[in-house]
Amino acid sequence: MSRASLAAITGEVLVGALIPERYRVDRSGHVPGGAPAVLVRAADVDDVRHAVGYAAEQGLSVVVRGAGTGLAGGACAGAGTLVLDVTGLDRILEIAPADELAVVQAGVSAAVLDTAAAEFGLRYAPDPASAAISTIGGNIATAAGGLRCVKYGVTADAVLGLSVVLADGRLLHTGRRTVKGVAGLDITRLFTGSEGTLGVIVAATVRLQPVPVDTVTVAASFADVTDAAAAASAVIAARVRPALLELLDEASLREARDLLGIEERAAGAFVVAQTDGFGARAEARLVADTFRQFTSRVEVGTDPATADQLLAVRRAALPALERHGRVLIEDIAVPRSAIAAAVQRITEIARRHDSRIHTFGHAGDGNLHPIIVVPADDPAAEGRATAAADEIFATALELGGTITGEHGVGVLKRRWLEREQGTAALEVQRSIRRALDPAGLFNPGKVF
Amino acid sequence: MSRASLAAITGEVLVGALIPERYRVDRSGHVPGGAPAVLVRAADVDDVRHAVGYAAEQGLSVVVRGAGTGLAGGACAGAGTLVLDVTGLDRILEIAPADELAVVQAGVSAAVLDTAAAEFGLRYAPDPASAAISTIGGNIATAAGGLRCVKYGVTADAVLGLSVVLADGRLLHTGRRTVKGVAGLDITRLFTGSEGTLGVIVAATVRLQPVPVDTVTVAASFADVTDAAAAASAVIAARVRPALLELLDEASLREARDLLGIEERAAGAFVVAQTDGFGARAEARLVADTFRQFTSRVEVGTDPATADQLLAVRRAALPALERHGRVLIEDIAVPRSAIAAAVQRITEIARRHDSRIHTFGHAGDGNLHPIIVVPADDPAAEGRATAAADEIFATALELGGTITGEHGVGVLKRRWLEREQGTAALEVQRSIRRALDPAGLFNPGKVF
Ligand SMILES: Cc1cc2nc3c(=O)[nH]c(=O)nc-3n(C[C@H](O)[C@H](O)[C@H](O)COP(=O)(O)OP(=O)(O)OC[C@H]3O[C@@H](n4cnc5c(N)ncnc54)[C@H](O)[C@@H]3O)c2cc1C
Ligand SMILES: Cc1cc2nc3c(=O)[nH]c(=O)nc-3n(C[C@H](O)[C@H](O)[C@H](O)COP(=O)(O)OP(=O)(O)OC[C@H]3O[C@@H](n4cnc5c(N)ncnc54)[C@H](O)[C@@H]3O)c2cc1C
Repeated sequence: MSRASLAAITGEVLVGALIPERYRVDRSGHVPGGAPAVLVRAADVDDVRHAVGYAAEQGLSVVVRGAGTGLAGGACAGAGTLVLDVTGLDRILEIAPADELAVVQAGVSAAVLDTAAAEFGLRYAPDPASAAISTIGGNIATAAGGLRCVKYGVTADAVLGLSVVLADGRLLHTGRRTVKGVAGLDITRLFTGSEGTLGVIVAATVRLQPVPVDTVTVAASFADVTDAAAAASAVIAARVRPALLELLDEASLREARDLLGIEERAAGAFVVAQTDGFGARAEARLVADTFRQFTSRVEVGTDPATADQLLAVRRAALPALERHGRVLIEDIAVPRSAIAAAVQRITEIARRHDSRIHTFGHAGDGNLHPIIVVPADDPAAEGRATAAADEIFATALELGGTITGEHGVGVLKRRWLEREQGTAALEVQRSIRRALDPAGLFNPGKVF
Repeated sequence: MSRASLAAITGEVLVGALIPERYRVDRSGHVPGGAPAVLVRAADVDDVRHAVGYAAEQGLSVVVRGAGTGLAGGACAGAGTLVLDVTGLDRILEIAPADELAVVQAGVSAAVLDTAAAEFGLRYAPDPASAAISTIGGNIATAAGGLRCVKYGVTADAVLGLSVVLADGRLLHTGRRTVKGVAGLDITRLFTGSEGTLGVIVAATVRLQPVPVDTVTVAASFADVTDAAAAASAVIAARVRPALLELLDEASLREARDLLGIEERAAGAFVVAQTDGFGARAEARLVADTFRQFTSRVEVGTDPATADQLLAVRRAALPALERHGRVLIEDIAVPRSAIAAAVQRITEIARRHDSRIHTFGHAGDGNLHPIIVVPADDPAAEGRATAAADEIFATALELGGTITGEHGVGVLKRRWLEREQGTAALEVQRSIRRALDPAGLFNPGKVF
């Protein structure tokens, strides 16, 4: 492969100063040193192969980029990089309703696929809040979560097979079209969540699922986060499998209601649940009864409009905080039994570091998003925020949890990976990386 | 590590002729050349490390062995091997009901764990038919399936983390205790389904799930397998998520009924479904209505006794066939839409090769078990059976399927792996294996 390989690219190639600034960064706030040397906007799989070949030859590293909505710095591209933008690979190649699967290129968004599947009474279950603004390739590369994954699984659970361009330019097909299959090592799962460090995902075969026949929403305000977490746990203990179970602490609830202009009695925490499927109503009754053991302020909605209204507070949480400055969106997960402890300790950490930290997240699976607000007018806030974030990670690990439930390691949590997983686990990962990409072409300096 | 490492073993060590014959084979019928040199019955994790160290030093390869119920020859051990029996690692280390997880040693059986979890209203969902006679380590190493995995996921979906002894003797911990987590490469999933080729699984953290609140069973006889497969597909298309959806073709149905002494009108195929959870009754009504579009012979049971009776035919299928000779238990999976075509083509293959092939399996996920009966009194039957098996694998691939839905590749399907997955996928797997086990200590000659 030679310089000729760049000329062969049918998409777009930009170099040096012509590359838009936004290609250096993602949505994490991290800014790398320097700027990318080359940007390739691939139009097809051959473009991807040419770009990878060119980068290898020129000694550039390859930063694969979907929509750049990542929150861990994974798509950040500094000096010495070729940014490979795969959003142009945006075709839905197949929807097979009887087999409940779709084959899509990496640049398709989860929301577009979901809409296309709806024509067949099906849906693409993984629903990161960024479903409409990110790519499914990025969702797969970060093993993204979402709201309904507590019942329907995360992105990784929806991936049946992948097409991947490897460091040597070869096109690899992994996985299968069948529901079950165990032939060989599960390399589909290995590339899922690899954050651009093992190869370029160009297409995926993903599961679809039927749209549930019925959905009921139940929301409740609680005196404090301990009660709220206990109520959420009690729902799980009651054998209910909600399709969504979200929690807001006092700080984020106050802001969300303020943004929405809701005047309401003070509340220390908020939980909203959805049940769905054939047992939705029976499950919702049990959820409401369970909540009532902890609070009298319970609302139930069986129609989409009421559901939207009850979910509005949860949806407003992040935008409400963004009014106050830059936000660091953290992403720890703890065993479900430790949710209340985690939120309490985060509140203490905020106090100790004189930081504004608002916590909301997925109570159903223990995945919490402590949001640290960094006001623009306070130059020392950044340092305090970083110190607080470090304490939050340490707390997650102490409580038996993880530094990242769904956003990935990227550059921002790299220092923490070994502390979470130990030396042996890190070495195993590095040896796999070396086996697949001996020259370290893909996203060096990220993850491990 | 030296010979001293054998002396350090607190479990049992047998050498040469003292090793019982059964340690050479599993339940596949495959017989390897030669016999193992050493058998170590490990009593604890240190024993495992000592045994691995000793084997490496002596140039023996390590064949990890659970209960030896595998159907692919994965645990078969011939000349030059050290058999490492881990059934002695049989402790349930922890059950954490609030977090719905358990930590178990590799030698525990899924059935024992399931019973222990039941005390907390929980269960271990993966239910291979061998749950009571195999080890969870073997289930994980083969990524075993089961009946209820159509709704609750296969073994791989239940594994949160693993402890693994690597080729260099180090103890690796992978994964997490949280429901969600995406830190680093998913090496938990890499070891799951690795069939003893990457390391020794000594313990696992696995998900538990609530015991469903209600279960309903629906069974039906059909005129032929086309109708039966169409009815099964129609159930899925009706958005029902049965907890179990099993199909028997005419040949296996006849034998199962014969074994059970059931006199009944001839039927061309049989399907049994179970629905469970809060919507079990509504879903069961829909299943029954759907079946009735294809047949009038539908039965519904809401109590455990009737359920057992309706499931008896499915359970009898394999024992019924074992009356007639040795059985080759195949394990293809096809996209759900191809089930009827697969069964029909298997019937033709049986005719062409003058073989008795009976097919039953998991209609909900397209995983079919064509059982080839090899009568002891027909010396030529073996050759015909092998030829038929090869055609069955080719058929699975032609229909967009896989050579193994749940039993694994082992030695028996090794030749077929590349044909299914292609050269690049095989090379990637081999390079990972080399990275983790450069000397090829673990199960050489298996899988890839
Ligand atoms: C408002 C907002 C809400 C969000 N909500 C969620 C949420 O609910 N759940 C969640 O999990 N995340 C969420 N995120 C984070 C982010 O959107 C997801 O991680 C998303 O999956 C990233 O997709 P992307 O296309 O933007 O990837 P990018 O940011 O472009 O890339 C992310 C990483 O994946 C790699 N990558 C991207 N595409 C490929 C490819 N084709 N092949 C190989 N590697 C690739 C990159 O190199 C990088 O390391 C949110 C972000 C925002 C801004
Ligand atoms: C009657 C019967 C019914 C069955 N039903 C099913 C079914 O419904 N679904 C299904 O999927 N399978 C089924 N099987 C196949 C078999 O039981 C499963 O594959 C089971 O998971 C094997 O467990 P085991 O402990 O017997 O493993 P073994 O047979 O001892 O080993 C199987 C493979 O795993 C490796 N291995 C075992 N333990 C470890 C460990 N601790 N660490 C690393 N590698 C290890 C071995 O090296 C070998 O390659 C059935 C078998 C029988 C005989």
